[in-house]
Amino acid sequence: MTRSRFTFSIAATDGKARTGTLEMLRGSIRTPAFMPVGTAATVKAMRPAEVRAAGADIILGNTYHLMLRPGAERMEALGGLHGFMGWDRPILTDSGGYQVMSLSALTKMSEEGVAFSSHIDGSKHMLTPERSMEIQRLLGSDIVMAFDECTKNGATRDEAALSMERSMRWAKRSRDAFDAGGAHAERAALFGIQQGALDEGLRKASADALIDIGFDGYAVGGLAVGEGQEAMFATLDFAPGQLPADKPRYLMGVGKPDDIVGAVERGIDMFDCVLPTRSGRNGQAFTWNGPLNIRNARFAEDMGPLDPECGCPVCTGWGRAYLHHLVKAKEILGAMLMTQHNIHFYQSLMQNLRDAIAEGRLAAFASAFRARYKGGA
Amino acid sequence: MTRSRFTFSIAATDGKARTGTLEMLRGSIRTPAFMPVGTAATVKAMRPAEVRAAGADIILGNTYHLMLRPGAERMEALGGLHGFMGWDRPILTDSGGYQVMSLSALTKMSEEGVAFSSHIDGSKHMLTPERSMEIQRLLGSDIVMAFDECTKNGATRDEAALSMERSMRWAKRSRDAFDAGGAHAERAALFGIQQGALDEGLRKASADALIDIGFDGYAVGGLAVGEGQEAMFATLDFAPGQLPADKPRYLMGVGKPDDIVGAVERGIDMFDCVLPTRSGRNGQAFTWNGPLNIRNARFAEDMGPLDPECGCPVCTGWGRAYLHHLVKAKEILGAMLMTQHNIHFYQSLMQNLRDAIAEGRLAAFASAFRARYKGGA
Repeated sequence: MTRSRFTFSIAATDGKARTGTLEMLRGSIRTPAFMPVGTAATVKAMRPAEVRAAGADIILGNTYHLMLRPGAERMEALGGLHGFMGWDRPILTDSGGYQVMSLSALTKMSEEGVAFSSHIDGSKHMLTPERSMEIQRLLGSDIVMAFDECTKNGATRDEAALSMERSMRWAKRSRDAFDAGGAHAERAALFGIQQGALDEGLRKASADALIDIGFDGYAVGGLAVGEGQEAMFATLDFAPGQLPADKPRYLMGVGKPDDIVGAVERGIDMFDCVLPTRSGRNGQAFTWNGPLNIRNARFAEDMGPLDPECGCPVCTGWGRAYLHHLVKAKEILGAMLMTQHNIHFYQSLMQNLRDAIAEGRLAAFASAFRARYKGGA
Repeated sequence: MTRSRFTFSIAATDGKARTGTLEMLRGSIRTPAFMPVGTAATVKAMRPAEVRAAGADIILGNTYHLMLRPGAERMEALGGLHGFMGWDRPILTDSGGYQVMSLSALTKMSEEGVAFSSHIDGSKHMLTPERSMEIQRLLGSDIVMAFDECTKNGATRDEAALSMERSMRWAKRSRDAFDAGGAHAERAALFGIQQGALDEGLRKASADALIDIGFDGYAVGGLAVGEGQEAMFATLDFAPGQLPADKPRYLMGVGKPDDIVGAVERGIDMFDCVLPTRSGRNGQAFTWNGPLNIRNARFAEDMGPLDPECGCPVCTGWGRAYLHHLVKAKEILGAMLMTQHNIHFYQSLMQNLRDAIAEGRLAAFASAFRARYKGGA
């Protein structure tokens, strides 16, 4: 079978929600999809085979981290990110724009891009749309994200407008630089990122600018930055509908399980978030009844699984008392098993969402989910 | 097939070395055997299935750590160590005697035993031969170690004699307490521990005292405590021969690969050591050419496996450059993969030793090993 560079097929819709398949050269991605975050060329505490066994079709790599260590040119010399880390399925890379502002020191932003110092060794770097495209090409990314500025939470309308407009100019530069990438541009896809904060008019202007440039998929950026679920959902009530219906829509950096359910209901197809991995390392497990902190003393003699309904290797292999012990003792295996369960839970949630959409019962599924799922993560 | 509580069969000898099988209710142990250390109910950074896949027939659990957390009575309430951690094969537990002296604070030793404060929370505890046997029974240990005092390196002959004699009195109390353990004594084995520092006469007196009491197996204790390989080998030139030829001989806390080869040549059947796991977490990999530190900059672009001759999942899955990256970035996966390789290497070394003994070519194997293996660990 000849695989396509990028084909998005919607198999079923249910309200605004859609389920389908993204076909790419390195494999198929079932949507709605959750992408585990593999920041520094590893989904923390998991082997690639374990990530795949949990049900992930695609993972995310961070341009900012990888450009600093091991370095983009070095990664290309080593054959690219896939071979380096042993993941042969699709990888989406972010543009570095968000993390350069949140993690690095001494940033200086201009129309050209962002100059910054590495948080690892203080070395000086510059990220521009052109350099971001080059780095993502050197990494061998399958889905490349346009370089943008993530408008900060609480920006005024004028600030949000200026920020969005710059991101749109950078989106065009990203498109041009990506297209000049030779063989890589024949194999990979490029996504644009909508900005505009919580403002419907700015979001529409951003969407129109992106559509005018033309992308394989469209991300809703600038959310999950502290605005809260209510404001996020209010924005998602209009933002996805401003983007092309026949292309995948990716909500960046989201989120908690209940965020994901609400966003899928509003037409989002792709997600990424560090929550299942980071929380796992901190002792938080996701269950169908909500998150639980395994460090709690009430689990010290609880021989039941993290989630009685979960069929993952952790829930079928060990009890809460053991996980409580491992996490309390700061054992690496605790981080491994908690992460594995959480990634499995997230993938199971996505499979449930896909099934519910395919069977036209998403509203009932979401309602039942919300009735049981207690507590923010 | 009905399994025996404890049967040691020697299939072949080569010089002083032996290879054979220990049959126990929970499984067979091929000797010479290396037991990965599962201190706190986990071989650090490894799932039980990964430990088994590396070739381990038995692991070691630490009485001192487990009595403090999660606690021996709690462990029994939870069904014992095997079910708790998900390892259904034999487990050897140490007596706690060594670690109470090296890890805990405010120790007070008397003929009765050792009073101490927990290094975790400062709580007061007492370890005696009777309590050590009880804890190992509560844990569900398969091979129970007698409670002893590890004579400190550099002790005078008089100090070593007094220490050894106390250990022999404790060995008798351990035997009596173990035998009073009801059903557990019908399932488990008890090993005595020879002391006597580096002194041939004291070692002989200790061996005779232990043989008089009678044990299923015999450990050579009090070595690998700072005396150096030369002194250790000099002691092993006579100590194993003082112990019954038809019982397994276990050299506690050893060691580096070259220590193990030399000890097998001198008649040792069982080993345990934290070196492969601890070193792995610190970036040290064992190879047939000696240890290497993966943090070294020369590995940053080295796409070869840790050891070209190793068939473990790490060496067949990832290159040195990736492991270098993970360890430098302090990624958990780095600890996981380095540990997995090291445990596999140790088990592979043991299989090579067993094969060499079975085929009567141990001297040639050991000579070839030493010619290639460079550098202390």
